[in-house]
Amino acid sequence: MSTAAARYGDPTAALDVTGEVLRLQLAHRSVRSFGPREVTDGELAALITAAQSAPTSSNLQPWSVVAVRDPTRKARLAALAAGQEFVARAPLFLVWLADLGRARRLAERGGTEVAAADYLETTLIAFIDTALAAQNTVTAAASLGLGTVFVGAIRIHPEEVAAELGLPPHTVAAFGLAVGEPDPLERADVKPRLPREAVLHRERYDGPAADAHIPGYDKVLAAYNARFGLSGGWSDRVLARLKGPESMAGRHRLREALARLGFPSR
Amino acid sequence: MSTAAARYGDPTAALDVTGEVLRLQLAHRSVRSFGPREVTDGELAALITAAQSAPTSSNLQPWSVVAVRDPTRKARLAALAAGQEFVARAPLFLVWLADLGRARRLAERGGTEVAAADYLETTLIAFIDTALAAQNTVTAAASLGLGTVFVGAIRIHPEEVAAELGLPPHTVAAFGLAVGEPDPLERADVKPRLPREAVLHRERYDGPAADAHIPGYDKVLAAYNARFGLSGGWSDRVLARLKGPESMAGRHRLREALARLGFPSR
Repeated sequence: MSTAAARYGDPTAALDVTGEVLRLQLAHRSVRSFGPREVTDGELAALITAAQSAPTSSNLQPWSVVAVRDPTRKARLAALAAGQEFVARAPLFLVWLADLGRARRLAERGGTEVAAADYLETTLIAFIDTALAAQNTVTAAASLGLGTVFVGAIRIHPEEVAAELGLPPHTVAAFGLAVGEPDPLERADVKPRLPREAVLHRERYDGPAADAHIPGYDKVLAAYNARFGLSGGWSDRVLARLKGPESMAGRHRLREALARLGFPSR
Repeated sequence: MSTAAARYGDPTAALDVTGEVLRLQLAHRSVRSFGPREVTDGELAALITAAQSAPTSSNLQPWSVVAVRDPTRKARLAALAAGQEFVARAPLFLVWLADLGRARRLAERGGTEVAAADYLETTLIAFIDTALAAQNTVTAAASLGLGTVFVGAIRIHPEEVAAELGLPPHTVAAFGLAVGEPDPLERADVKPRLPREAVLHRERYDGPAADAHIPGYDKVLAAYNARFGLSGGWSDRVLARLKGPESMAGRHRLREALARLGFPSR
């Protein structure tokens, strides 16, 4: 199958334009099982330079990243992230930080104020810019033959993660990213996404037209899941994941934790 | 200068590893002036397929995108986004939506609840996943010779933008992205970023070591700004941008607007 066909689980899907970058992006899959080779310091430098090359609102650069290689620290972070053992087994675990602390320290040294940092808008800028940067790292890693997977579970225990990494006030782990050489034996594949016309609207949002594609996608995803011995389609998984606070593994407390860590998000 | 040297405004900066993807990423610059050629439907399809190939938390896919080409609509959106005229002049303006509405509608049709969608954690998932997707589009666009620039100012008037695009409840414009052929006459260049060691920490966060790189960066950015007839370094601009609600162009009201649009973010 072409990369577009695999991306949509639709043998007829194809694109008019292509290239090395698109092929690499379309072939993305999550990697949770890693080979033995280390990620070199030169590779790490390139991954971070790629991240810094992403756009950032008003050039604020409101993020930082902690590169964790120490096995005992990775194991502790894995335990804090719902016990996902691949975090400990990845040669490199990057903890991406929404970082308004740098600006707050600048203000403190200058005897001035940055009261805009108190607002939800600024919290969102920090998380958005961190995500833009990290996605550049995902693509750069793929171009170097490295696999990655994001770890949102690092937000289950934000205060404990902050203590583990020695974070100053006004910084918080936005997500983790495990990085390493993909284990060729891992049973994982390109996961089909919603048909393009379920997410792409022209001029104005058309909910009924978009949602009409969901039943077909449920069948595509059920077939994909069945290949890995899993049952169910997309809709039932979305509904289970978003059922209520009890389906959030503790992450329903994030607002409170953010406030304590210096993101009042008013 | 190499792309790493330009990225850091440091003639000695270089990377051990490289490749087509890294070169493209490191050469990123914002494009706000566009040539006459249209973005084709085939290119738009590729840009969105790239976006859909980005990672998404639990495969929730909590975003949508509205492709706007109609000149009068682009002009109205430009007016809502602080009157930035390049929005109207871009051949294609993509409005990226944090979209929890799709899941809410699924729940409604299924007679069930998705109370997790009420939490700030889920709002953040939606914004993060939208950003991961959009950054793939930025890179894919560059690979097709198209320039882009994000428009955060679309968050100044979220309700008016929602009305313009016919958004259903629980969807909100996260940011815009202007897309088009770069005008070769535009005076714009690769903007130097903070030195890598100002944002990259090893094992634990070291604020003093990181912040020690800021004074040097202020000089680099002052020299860059001077080339465009602008004055000032980085620190003073960050402090001005984050001074307080009065420096946010109305975006301090975002929390309230999000709540009205169906993102209680509790």
